[in-house]
Amino acid sequence: MGSRLVVALGGNALGNTPKEQLELVKATAEVLADLVEQGNELVISHGNGRQVGMLNLGMEYAADDGVAPYIPLPECDALTQGYIGYHLQQALQNAFVRRGIQKNCVTLITQVVVRKDDPGFLDPTKPIGSFYTKTQAENIAKSRGYVFKEDAGRGYRRVVASPKPVRIVELETIRSLTEQNAVVIACGGGGIPVLEEVGALEGVSAVIDKDRVSSLLALGLKADRLVILTAVDQVCIHFGKPEQTALSRMSIREAEQYIRDGEFAPGSMLPKVEACVEFLQKAKPGASAMITSLARAKEAMEGKTGTVIYAE
Amino acid sequence: MGSRLVVALGGNALGNTPKEQLELVKATAEVLADLVEQGNELVISHGNGRQVGMLNLGMEYAADDGVAPYIPLPECDALTQGYIGYHLQQALQNAFVRRGIQKNCVTLITQVVVRKDDPGFLDPTKPIGSFYTKTQAENIAKSRGYVFKEDAGRGYRRVVASPKPVRIVELETIRSLTEQNAVVIACGGGGIPVLEEVGALEGVSAVIDKDRVSSLLALGLKADRLVILTAVDQVCIHFGKPEQTALSRMSIREAEQYIRDGEFAPGSMLPKVEACVEFLQKAKPGASAMITSLARAKEAMEGKTGTVIYAE
Repeated sequence: MGSRLVVALGGNALGNTPKEQLELVKATAEVLADLVEQGNELVISHGNGRQVGMLNLGMEYAADDGVAPYIPLPECDALTQGYIGYHLQQALQNAFVRRGIQKNCVTLITQVVVRKDDPGFLDPTKPIGSFYTKTQAENIAKSRGYVFKEDAGRGYRRVVASPKPVRIVELETIRSLTEQNAVVIACGGGGIPVLEEVGALEGVSAVIDKDRVSSLLALGLKADRLVILTAVDQVCIHFGKPEQTALSRMSIREAEQYIRDGEFAPGSMLPKVEACVEFLQKAKPGASAMITSLARAKEAMEGKTGTVIYAE
Repeated sequence: MGSRLVVALGGNALGNTPKEQLELVKATAEVLADLVEQGNELVISHGNGRQVGMLNLGMEYAADDGVAPYIPLPECDALTQGYIGYHLQQALQNAFVRRGIQKNCVTLITQVVVRKDDPGFLDPTKPIGSFYTKTQAENIAKSRGYVFKEDAGRGYRRVVASPKPVRIVELETIRSLTEQNAVVIACGGGGIPVLEEVGALEGVSAVIDKDRVSSLLALGLKADRLVILTAVDQVCIHFGKPEQTALSRMSIREAEQYIRDGEFAPGSMLPKVEACVEFLQKAKPGASAMITSLARAKEAMEGKTGTVIYAE
């Protein structure tokens, strides 16, 4: 109780269309307001997979027909930070007013520095946007310099690098607003990836993993707990097998062993557990991480469900 | 010197495409950094006419073809706040680093409350987006509930209300960040227009005039000066006539007389002068307003050009 939490929201907290998202964020805001009423300080990050896909695809379609200019990926990330931030912040403000919670809620456009020599840039793996035929992909690759990869027999998709987040440019402001009793929404979509060359920032085409940046954010804010909210109540081992077991607690050492054993699906539970481990390796004593569902986050904070990850 | 300024940037400070805008904001940032080096505290607002047009048009085109969902106007405003804010904040951060200025620069997603019974909603006048034929306009009007008006023989355009801004929802945070030595970018595109019903905020299809909201922002922040940066160095009377006269100073009373005389073009200089008058009518003693060009803003602050508007 009374902890500083960095809460990372997954796709299920948001929506595929503006209309759907406006509805979904109402439920999301109630859960987050519960956490505030438990006495916690909240900093909120969120993914943007569906939303950046929608905007990227729509604007690219219009650009291909000469209707609108082409919008590069860092700018698409900035678009989604405004769009999702607006919905989340409004829903939270409304929930706070209804509950009589005296807190401001704001969205900060956030850039995250990545390294130019990050190995992720040599081998882009993160698929974004729609599927193309081999010929279409080759043409777009030629005209725009995109990299395409064949995706499990379903066609060709653009792949971008997913470099490691190094520094959150707006961290100091996020911290100072948090200390002034505001709920801050930051690092949306993993943050806008930027390179830093002799002090000058410049956007770069990449997608930073939102759980990884949330771990960095939690470290930077000396958070007591990193909370990753997703679609399942608890982390499981032997997932999908008869001996499937939900975990209530897992030490860093156990988590690392499970990772080595291939217990967690890449692109799904693996990056979440890895983000928690990364946070706990450098976090202040007594810090912990939590993976649970959005729906049961309040109960999880009371120890009734969820998976707590802790340092030995 | 050493004043709190609210600086409203017009279209010429930004750009038509992401590539063009990235270049233009570099020059804009240099001007703004000059104002900071003169010892001023800066809060920056900006228009979004071209950018919201580009996104609205592109996404509507994609939506009409079933490629992407339809994005309502308040959400389009939120998109542009993220997009323009990102470019401006990055350019300013880079300029600050180069000049050794120790200031943070952040963008806050900003909602602005308007009244449901604002007369602007009864007679939408602000044209947005592209031109349509009468039949196209009638079809879209039927399917989406848009209002169209014939635009000077060039075809039909969607018109939206331009209600008066009543309250800036995130004002307290803008103020507290300003007091903590940050340059804040806020109220982009006039702010995201919202209605407030029993404490619950909800987006509404409208476009708030960015100069008007800048006036409200300057009042809320008890600014010393409202600075409206546009394409011309000074306000002129008898504009375009042989007796055209550039004004260095103009009192509120003179401004009001010129307005009555029809000296200022509606949709151009008129809303700027009106915004300055509105600010000065309620501003603290000694406050002033300035209308000048982006290019000569530094000189204008030194009294070498620009038009100062002052209360008697």
